[in-house]
Amino acid sequence: MKKLLNDPNQLVSDFLDGFTAVHTSQLKRLPNSNVVVRKQPKTDKVGVISGGGSGHEPAHAGYVGHGMLDAAVCGEVFTSPGADQFLAAIEAANQGKGVLLVIKNYNGDRMNAEMAMEMAEAQGIQTEMVVVNDDVAVADPAQRRGIAGTVLVHKIAGACAETGASLTKVKEVAEKAISRIRSMSVALTPCSLPGVDQPSFALAEDEMEVGIGIHGERGMYREKVAPSQEIAKLLVSKVAAELPGSDPLAVLINGMGSTPLVEQYSFARDVLAELDKQSYKIHATYVGDYMTSLDMAGISLTLFVVDDELAPYLQAEARTVQWQS
Amino acid sequence: MKKLLNDPNQLVSDFLDGFTAVHTSQLKRLPNSNVVVRKQPKTDKVGVISGGGSGHEPAHAGYVGHGMLDAAVCGEVFTSPGADQFLAAIEAANQGKGVLLVIKNYNGDRMNAEMAMEMAEAQGIQTEMVVVNDDVAVADPAQRRGIAGTVLVHKIAGACAETGASLTKVKEVAEKAISRIRSMSVALTPCSLPGVDQPSFALAEDEMEVGIGIHGERGMYREKVAPSQEIAKLLVSKVAAELPGSDPLAVLINGMGSTPLVEQYSFARDVLAELDKQSYKIHATYVGDYMTSLDMAGISLTLFVVDDELAPYLQAEARTVQWQS
Repeated sequence: MKKLLNDPNQLVSDFLDGFTAVHTSQLKRLPNSNVVVRKQPKTDKVGVISGGGSGHEPAHAGYVGHGMLDAAVCGEVFTSPGADQFLAAIEAANQGKGVLLVIKNYNGDRMNAEMAMEMAEAQGIQTEMVVVNDDVAVADPAQRRGIAGTVLVHKIAGACAETGASLTKVKEVAEKAISRIRSMSVALTPCSLPGVDQPSFALAEDEMEVGIGIHGERGMYREKVAPSQEIAKLLVSKVAAELPGSDPLAVLINGMGSTPLVEQYSFARDVLAELDKQSYKIHATYVGDYMTSLDMAGISLTLFVVDDELAPYLQAEARTVQWQS
Repeated sequence: MKKLLNDPNQLVSDFLDGFTAVHTSQLKRLPNSNVVVRKQPKTDKVGVISGGGSGHEPAHAGYVGHGMLDAAVCGEVFTSPGADQFLAAIEAANQGKGVLLVIKNYNGDRMNAEMAMEMAEAQGIQTEMVVVNDDVAVADPAQRRGIAGTVLVHKIAGACAETGASLTKVKEVAEKAISRIRSMSVALTPCSLPGVDQPSFALAEDEMEVGIGIHGERGMYREKVAPSQEIAKLLVSKVAAELPGSDPLAVLINGMGSTPLVEQYSFARDVLAELDKQSYKIHATYVGDYMTSLDMAGISLTLFVVDDELAPYLQAEARTVQWQS
């Protein structure tokens, strides 16, 4: 598959060089690593870091900055970063108040993050981890993957940390957010990995894949492509069925990579109409490419039950490449 | 080709409903039109409007707001809006100091905009037009198309208008910017239009199209896909050859729709290295989807020779959906 790149094995490194060169006033790359950190770290706060495989840009490097992350660890495409990379990020993010790791629920990410935490604790750095598992396409909650809703956890945990809260408090708030964030996705096309000749799966011209993850894997089932209004109804019903509580909702509609904004906002109209029909109150709506899967065409819907404690964190100032509020 | 939509003929209207619903605190849709305006218009300034066919999102509606546009006219996909739509935007944007139209160099857009200007003048509204023709892929300057560089004209003209400058002055500054902005694009894949079964052209798996526009049209020529570094070298040499002057450059690297950010920033690295090799000074760099062509995979490079008069307009505060500075 055609790509705009030099050596597929150098793509992530080339990306990091470009990303930190373009945003040089805000960000830098740690030497000899695939870790992006703030150029002017804020002291006297808990560090919040995230990461995982690349190919999800703007996640996670696009969320490093005031009000969100202190560091992002960027593995190879769809591949967990090693424990040494997580450790470098923990060390950089630690300002003496400890570090929270926001990890998506994948075995590789969890294992490497946990190893890094043990190494950091051995150095006397306090660490905690929260695991995001927002994807309701998977029935068993323990097996649920972390997808686009992870970005909302970055926002909440980052804003809480920015207030000077303790590691215990930041972790507690992040876990509260995680328990209220649910997502599900559909794809119209698979994605194609750099250096690989075949797309990640095959879909007929009249089919869509329902319940996909963000790593080009097959979904739960496939069916005939439906109009936007029906896809909106499907995702709203699946996601809303798993929501706790009845506070107002934050809605995140996330393009998977090659879904044009003209389609994303048209879909947003259909989602908002469906939620209105079901009498949900809307706290905020976000639309765009927040957590992609390379060049996949598709969309995910995330619903987040916001309460009076969480709303100010969601609204708080953030100055990152992707999220500015 | 599969799309996330309901009726292809309703896509632009559905987009506008979704876009203005999601950004309801900042923007609204004029009744019975495809025009997006600021919700809180600023008085005592020249109005700046733009528009053209849809399918280029976030252009143009994503640039409506403080510091950039007062209104965006959204035609059907790749189709000029009618004169009545331009007129509605002019009327909405007029605060008594006149209105500048920023139009891309396409016959349909120019003709309809000119008709609207005549109708507005008959109502006593002063209007002026500037025509953006940044695409150096076309040899004859009179035939050059307006592509991604148009967004920089929005930024400059919008910032100048925000200072309270006269219509004559805003037009003069916009024309100065236009004379210093040059662009060129390559595509790895064509795009596909809503409701149309075929892609806009055919490209072999090992080919790229050089010198494409933003409407799915064929480029100037095609050749074997090259590594990112060679494409960077090609575009830098073609664009730089047409630049006037030697002031520092603003660089805009624009994804055509389905080019992942991981590739865009990797390409940015190669462009910046090439410019550095040629001893250009860089004033600012922007990377992302600014002016797309639906789901086309490809990239455009825009170089803008900035001087001491224009630099403050480029840096001035803007609060729009896509451009926040």
